[in-house]
Amino acid sequence: MPHLKMKFSTNPSSLSVSAVLTKEQTDAESKSKKQAMEFKEYVLEKAISVNKALESAVSIKEPVKIHESMRYSLLAGGKRIRPMLCIAACELVGGVESTAMPAACAVEMIHTMSLIHDDLPCMDNDDLRRGKPTNHKIYGEDVAVLAGDALLALAFEHIATQTKGVSSDRIVRVIGELAKCIGSEGLVAGQVVDIISEGISDVDLKHLEFIHLHKTAALLEGSVVLGAILGGAPDEDVEKLRKFARCIGLLFQVVDDILDVTKSSQQLGKTAGKDLVADKVTYPKLIGIEKSREFAEELNKEAKAQLVGFDQEKAAPLFALANYIAYREN
Amino acid sequence: MPHLKMKFSTNPSSLSVSAVLTKEQTDAESKSKKQAMEFKEYVLEKAISVNKALESAVSIKEPVKIHESMRYSLLAGGKRIRPMLCIAACELVGGVESTAMPAACAVEMIHTMSLIHDDLPCMDNDDLRRGKPTNHKIYGEDVAVLAGDALLALAFEHIATQTKGVSSDRIVRVIGELAKCIGSEGLVAGQVVDIISEGISDVDLKHLEFIHLHKTAALLEGSVVLGAILGGAPDEDVEKLRKFARCIGLLFQVVDDILDVTKSSQQLGKTAGKDLVADKVTYPKLIGIEKSREFAEELNKEAKAQLVGFDQEKAAPLFALANYIAYREN
Repeated sequence: MPHLKMKFSTNPSSLSVSAVLTKEQTDAESKSKKQAMEFKEYVLEKAISVNKALESAVSIKEPVKIHESMRYSLLAGGKRIRPMLCIAACELVGGVESTAMPAACAVEMIHTMSLIHDDLPCMDNDDLRRGKPTNHKIYGEDVAVLAGDALLALAFEHIATQTKGVSSDRIVRVIGELAKCIGSEGLVAGQVVDIISEGISDVDLKHLEFIHLHKTAALLEGSVVLGAILGGAPDEDVEKLRKFARCIGLLFQVVDDILDVTKSSQQLGKTAGKDLVADKVTYPKLIGIEKSREFAEELNKEAKAQLVGFDQEKAAPLFALANYIAYREN
Repeated sequence: MPHLKMKFSTNPSSLSVSAVLTKEQTDAESKSKKQAMEFKEYVLEKAISVNKALESAVSIKEPVKIHESMRYSLLAGGKRIRPMLCIAACELVGGVESTAMPAACAVEMIHTMSLIHDDLPCMDNDDLRRGKPTNHKIYGEDVAVLAGDALLALAFEHIATQTKGVSSDRIVRVIGELAKCIGSEGLVAGQVVDIISEGISDVDLKHLEFIHLHKTAALLEGSVVLGAILGGAPDEDVEKLRKFARCIGLLFQVVDDILDVTKSSQQLGKTAGKDLVADKVTYPKLIGIEKSREFAEELNKEAKAQLVGFDQEKAAPLFALANYIAYREN
């Protein structure tokens, strides 16, 4: 994964709102409100169909305990950002929701697997996730390890057996992309370097970016790229969307770092201030809160620049998802 | 996975050798010795090419620690039974070694992943594996969990990106089969029921068979089925070979159960007598050593019956692998 070279913006935040609005500003505000409403409907609609698909992807059967454990974490009400990115990318390039749905479920299964394993006592040792006890607190460490493994395998099974209306060539490509973004050069690489870096005081920005690009951005990148490939995008468009996803992936983690030090556990639905306690290097720690916020703005802008040239109406959900990631509260 | 209905044979072991040999018996002995030599050469040759392929499948790169951890367990000198089954099945139906090699590596990666996770303190808590300290003893529990995850993902990446000369339709089918034999209805199902059953005194034969068919037979089945599909076998032959694999899979575990109570840790290269200490239900515990041996013979016979109708020369390695599994010493 190439190193992202981005300057830190010194411009004032684009979120600031002037006290007195001109006619144009009122019109823009009103258009923006309309878009926000449409996005809210979009998110609601997609979340319902994704949750329905996830619900039927893991039914209760023998052995009951492992399926309960998988469902406990998978259906714990996450924000479903990854499935939404996958579906939105597919629709952007001309595909339909049903084509992307198995892959959309797969990326959420992988995300859930990574949370279950990450929360284990031998890893982050977290008791709380999405406002509920972590998987191993309910089912035991052994079953939690296995539930993660089973979700990882199911993700591939789901894509291979449930994807319809796409050539097998594209399905094979999608499986290769997903596997790469999980493994020792993706998600796992980020987690390992994160673990190794704990307590080390001289971690620099490049090193921190490696962690975030792998630990968080890789799977967000995968989500978008999978959707684009399944939707039939030409290679050039897949690569533009890959860059978009990498930017919002890094953005996601920068915002996460900021939220960890600015919000309470109750507001986040998970233990706040953990990074500080674990002495983890974060963007706020390295460059301060304000510079972190500016960097987030810059990444959001850089991400959106990749969407120029696509049908702007169809690209609206990806624009809005980038904003959502940038300005989320938990 | 259907329940295997097999009667226990009461025939004397087919291994017993008469003191005085007739001319026919001498000829048969001599033929058998020749076959044993040929099989030894076959195993040696395949082990070399599999090890070479595994060696280059996981090279040392950044982050170094995770790749070292993956290589430590993957290249620890296992018997490579699963890759050999995969290649032998592919060659039996008319395919070539190179076509099956990425899948052969993949099944060994999955096997290694399951050993790493199974050895964790929260699971079997084993210190010794293949005569060496277990992965988490060297790299820590956190890295061991991640090394397993990375190997799981790499298995799929390897098949999706490295398989050559086969239609994408067959590659997708192979990925679906592999994923299913790992997940909550395969390998993981067996491990979960095994964990739940520890210390329960009234586990019956059907229950024990469920554990073995899932924990061990599923991946052996997958190895054979993947090879057969990649080699271009028609569905009917894939199903015959699936049944062959299921029988030798159960056979493998029955023999494992027997070895655990009859051999020393040094002979096995892993902790012996663990099943007894952990109060695990095993075949010897349920039906005694002798009946377990008879059952193993019966399974071996049932497995070989599936190979009738195939080119017998090409089927020789699978016959020999079944015998090897039945009569191995560790």
